[in-house]
Amino acid sequence: MIAGIELGGTKTVVALGEADGRVIEEHRYPTTDGPETLARAIAWLQERGIPERIGIGAFGPISVNRARADYGSLLATPKPGWRGFSVTGALAEVFPAARVAIDTDVNVAVLAEADGLDDVAYITIGTGIGGGVLADGRLVHGAVHSELGHWFPRRAEGDDFAGVCPFHGDCLEGLASGPAMKQRWGREARDLGDEPRAWEFETHYLAQAVLVLLAAVNPARVVIGGGVSQAEGFHGQVEEKVRAAAQSYFAALEENSPFVVPPQHGQQAGIRGALLLASS
Amino acid sequence: MIAGIELGGTKTVVALGEADGRVIEEHRYPTTDGPETLARAIAWLQERGIPERIGIGAFGPISVNRARADYGSLLATPKPGWRGFSVTGALAEVFPAARVAIDTDVNVAVLAEADGLDDVAYITIGTGIGGGVLADGRLVHGAVHSELGHWFPRRAEGDDFAGVCPFHGDCLEGLASGPAMKQRWGREARDLGDEPRAWEFETHYLAQAVLVLLAAVNPARVVIGGGVSQAEGFHGQVEEKVRAAAQSYFAALEENSPFVVPPQHGQQAGIRGALLLASS
Repeated sequence: MIAGIELGGTKTVVALGEADGRVIEEHRYPTTDGPETLARAIAWLQERGIPERIGIGAFGPISVNRARADYGSLLATPKPGWRGFSVTGALAEVFPAARVAIDTDVNVAVLAEADGLDDVAYITIGTGIGGGVLADGRLVHGAVHSELGHWFPRRAEGDDFAGVCPFHGDCLEGLASGPAMKQRWGREARDLGDEPRAWEFETHYLAQAVLVLLAAVNPARVVIGGGVSQAEGFHGQVEEKVRAAAQSYFAALEENSPFVVPPQHGQQAGIRGALLLASS
Repeated sequence: MIAGIELGGTKTVVALGEADGRVIEEHRYPTTDGPETLARAIAWLQERGIPERIGIGAFGPISVNRARADYGSLLATPKPGWRGFSVTGALAEVFPAARVAIDTDVNVAVLAEADGLDDVAYITIGTGIGGGVLADGRLVHGAVHSELGHWFPRRAEGDDFAGVCPFHGDCLEGLASGPAMKQRWGREARDLGDEPRAWEFETHYLAQAVLVLLAAVNPARVVIGGGVSQAEGFHGQVEEKVRAAAQSYFAALEENSPFVVPPQHGQQAGIRGALLLASS
């Protein structure tokens, strides 16, 4: 019995599934505090048996590096009832024999979207910008975990927007997240189809992000998901800017086309990835 | 018997050593073409016995991802007598039973400088800018390998230098390598002690690089080496700029001080890292 849990900021999904990520049965409910949210997942699982493996994809910041003493616990989140809560601890108490693995929501999405490749990066553009990296077939954690939204891309020509990140102002997230689009243009990203400059800027910033990933972790593909990425032609425009800037320098880019792609599994990526993590 | 080989652009080092990276005996000679350079290393080793393990750190571009059919071979290098040459193949022919591992010169330097940490990045600033990443105790390769010098950092205020990278103009390498310093200021980096603006710009660009690494691979430490990094106070200035920009956002940065450090092993990092790679 393989179980997956997707802990999202607003909703949680618990599922039974297959080692290849297919969902057999799932249950969705609103995320409340840590103990209550986990208790509901556990109760649903107990009605179905005792899972041998449990994979969890969770919002962050969360400790996902097994070398840390606080592995499996939420770190400094402002979310009530979560800070310091041990997700893996709650599961181990009820299912002591289960093999439990936890990772960030974006890292499990990488697993779901990797599609047989060993080297893939995933960026999601929504309320924030986050991402995960699979390198040499293994999820990259680093000391804590990646924070793909928080570095300073080169500005698009003519762009002097101050940015909306409460920490950094005009980091990638501050310039290109959903809220950044809305504050800059006065409308939601989905209503900006008639504003080519909005997409000129947006695809410029995402192309910078793809180049940074090529430099740092050299993926064979970059998947970009999240609400803002759903504009028509978005991925092609980003890829075009990446190739124009890269000047045929990166073998990983030259050998792989298309390089910038939308997610295949959409809303199911999180729970599929959690099941894959359980089986990995 | 553990052997290490450091293939540099101008010199090669072959050594016998210990699993902890200590060199017992070494031999240095100029790098010529692929077959001749390897033949000299092999002859030196054969006089001493048959190595069980061989680790190699090599200039690039080189295929270091074991999933690739061309693992161990030089890729599109302009260096005469190296393109397509299989370093691991040359060794396997003479030492068929040896376990041979190869990685980039910068990745083996990361191994030498990791000092017990599992998550470390290394940047070297010389003729070019390159780097390597150890994440979760494993060297990151990606589809080919990292190219830390070739992305586009945000410009320092007041800097309108066009950059010297033949591919990208003002990428990190184009703005902050040794040749970039020389072309911009008319003197070598080591003679720019009286030019504070040179170091204001230089440490700005390296701080941007450290932030990109924090975002993408989240190291617990960044080692910066190479000739340009030897200016007095360099690492402290980079770290100060990183902390000012990061605004206490990264747990990995908050938990580790100093964060930006010089290499401990200097000229020995390459051969030590090759020995560590052999033993890993």
